[in-house]
Amino acid sequence: MALARLVDVHTHVYLPRYASLLRTRSAVPRILTSTTVDGKRDDRLLILEHEPSGGRPVGPQYWDREEKIKFMDQHGIDLSVVSTANPWLDFLPAPEAKQMADDLNADLEEYCSGSPELTPSLKRLYGFGLLPLVSGISTEALLETIERISKLAYLKGIIMGTRGIGNGLDDAALDPVWGALEAAGLVVFIHPHYGVDNAAWGPKDNGHVLPLALGFPFETTIATTRLILAGVFDRYPSLRVLLAHSGGALPQLSSRLASCIDHDPVVASRLKHDARWYLGKLYFDAVAYGPEELGFVSDAIARSARYETGVTASDFTLDRGLGSQRMLFGTDHPFFPPLASTQKWKSVVENLEAIEAVSGWTAAQREGVRGANALSLFNLV
Amino acid sequence: MALARLVDVHTHVYLPRYASLLRTRSAVPRILTSTTVDGKRDDRLLILEHEPSGGRPVGPQYWDREEKIKFMDQHGIDLSVVSTANPWLDFLPAPEAKQMADDLNADLEEYCSGSPELTPSLKRLYGFGLLPLVSGISTEALLETIERISKLAYLKGIIMGTRGIGNGLDDAALDPVWGALEAAGLVVFIHPHYGVDNAAWGPKDNGHVLPLALGFPFETTIATTRLILAGVFDRYPSLRVLLAHSGGALPQLSSRLASCIDHDPVVASRLKHDARWYLGKLYFDAVAYGPEELGFVSDAIARSARYETGVTASDFTLDRGLGSQRMLFGTDHPFFPPLASTQKWKSVVENLEAIEAVSGWTAAQREGVRGANALSLFNLV
Repeated sequence: MALARLVDVHTHVYLPRYASLLRTRSAVPRILTSTTVDGKRDDRLLILEHEPSGGRPVGPQYWDREEKIKFMDQHGIDLSVVSTANPWLDFLPAPEAKQMADDLNADLEEYCSGSPELTPSLKRLYGFGLLPLVSGISTEALLETIERISKLAYLKGIIMGTRGIGNGLDDAALDPVWGALEAAGLVVFIHPHYGVDNAAWGPKDNGHVLPLALGFPFETTIATTRLILAGVFDRYPSLRVLLAHSGGALPQLSSRLASCIDHDPVVASRLKHDARWYLGKLYFDAVAYGPEELGFVSDAIARSARYETGVTASDFTLDRGLGSQRMLFGTDHPFFPPLASTQKWKSVVENLEAIEAVSGWTAAQREGVRGANALSLFNLV
Repeated sequence: MALARLVDVHTHVYLPRYASLLRTRSAVPRILTSTTVDGKRDDRLLILEHEPSGGRPVGPQYWDREEKIKFMDQHGIDLSVVSTANPWLDFLPAPEAKQMADDLNADLEEYCSGSPELTPSLKRLYGFGLLPLVSGISTEALLETIERISKLAYLKGIIMGTRGIGNGLDDAALDPVWGALEAAGLVVFIHPHYGVDNAAWGPKDNGHVLPLALGFPFETTIATTRLILAGVFDRYPSLRVLLAHSGGALPQLSSRLASCIDHDPVVASRLKHDARWYLGKLYFDAVAYGPEELGFVSDAIARSARYETGVTASDFTLDRGLGSQRMLFGTDHPFFPPLASTQKWKSVVENLEAIEAVSGWTAAQREGVRGANALSLFNLV
């Protein structure tokens, strides 16, 4: 019997090349260095507009492989599929973005290939590469990057934001990109950065809470809904898309989405399926911090089968556990650190406890979410 | 034994006085009248900026009491608690808003008091009044309106949007309003209108789908989260707030919200409880169109007790059914009509079927959501 593995699919890096780039910048995203009153160097990361409280402390946990392994050991994580953190290359002009994507993808390959062995045939680190998804980039450049990534043994997918090449992910100009990603078998990890317009948060100071707790998941929800409405999952049925933060609010709004589509004949006629069907074709990280949330996401995936052509809703019995097969543990490291550096990370412990506490999952299904589903999704078995 | 009643808590009107106002306007919200090629009068309602497809057909279903009763009879609805539809009085200058609130509240009282009897002691229609929540209004004017509403026998609460008097519902200037509403025992129905910035929807034409399916629930989620963060539910513990569309995305994002607050000591120190605790103090309509959504909202309400002071999470067993006591059937009539006027409304049938199909609710709990909870919330028993 295979050992039960703990695999982290949502864990970020700013590789040294990227961190150096951030240090050269005078606008967000940037790393700002100052000296504290007692003469220590103080590096701060500023990635959001209107960053409160002078930015967050940034250090080797963002770029050192040893720090990543140390974090993994501390939490019993066997294998991680790491990705560059937001905002990726969004702020670069097209030629620089292309070069930086190729360089960072090569760096990440080395970061992974030089990581310790988990078994004779597995390393402890694998990665999501980057595409130069910026305004003005050519389709050829994007396809060439995908081609390069597909030749890197340790890169198993790509991470992307939601802006595409300027018009969002439902831009028809991205169709060749989806086609190439599907053909290459690369997993597409969709991750937020921009949230929604800051005016929504109002004048009161609530720190980062509103843009992170609400804005981030809203952005993922919008991007994925736009992909559904644009028919991308109809045209690229084998495309494997992993959603950050358990898909944000998409599961909870999916029946409302289906109802709104039903009442708009023009949009409805474009789609092959009920909106809820598509949720069963997606993958969701298990970064939601609560067992009820995870159970519900599992329901929303499992009920996809109710909307298969030929199924009668009244004959359908929901099996929550089936949804677990598309859910994957993640930590969001190195974000949300504990207040003291020796502590286990509460954000990690909560996500692990949530997996254990979901009602209606079998032990094997919990092991799936903890790691087996990821090993299968990334072809690491 | 009491008869099981079906009660609709989410059902809108534009009373004749309001419809007349909309006809005088040259900007949204407005009713635009034209003549069709075959000489018929064509009234169109435009309430959103960038309204697609020339607005929606508007007619007596928006203002005639007989039409409301006919709709109720068609769907077996015994009693409705009607509310003015968005955007209420948001677009009026303060003095006009105050006068219009008082007039419309008197109109709505008459609309309800003249409705048929359900029993010798119950009418079929009750209402949510309006406050003149606009920029520049005085606290005195708001309190005076609340005082008036509390003297109207058939008005059991008020409906409001999310802008308050210009700075959102977490504006400290509204504290006397929350206090007065709490003291008067009026239910506060929070309903969206603005969504989020339209730029989020991108350049593709998806009709109304994105702002309605996502923007509306996002707005409710933001407003309620801001109320939680501002400590309103700590300061006004008996305030009864009903959230439109099952609270939008709040339940699914509530553990993430709790986690983000945990990592922000300044915000955390302001609140008496874990963010998830507050969901157990709220009421949620059951307008979510799917049984899994309703079951999950019920979970999110029920788990509030896990975050009571003195409760140990590991000793807590979730009883989903308890959450049902704060959930209430609604239709969103006269929005989302069927394509043919003789049909039952799919939007209504789906919400009723969803209540029947929730896993883990008893028959009595389903009857509660269908009507008994509303009768109790509005003191109609």
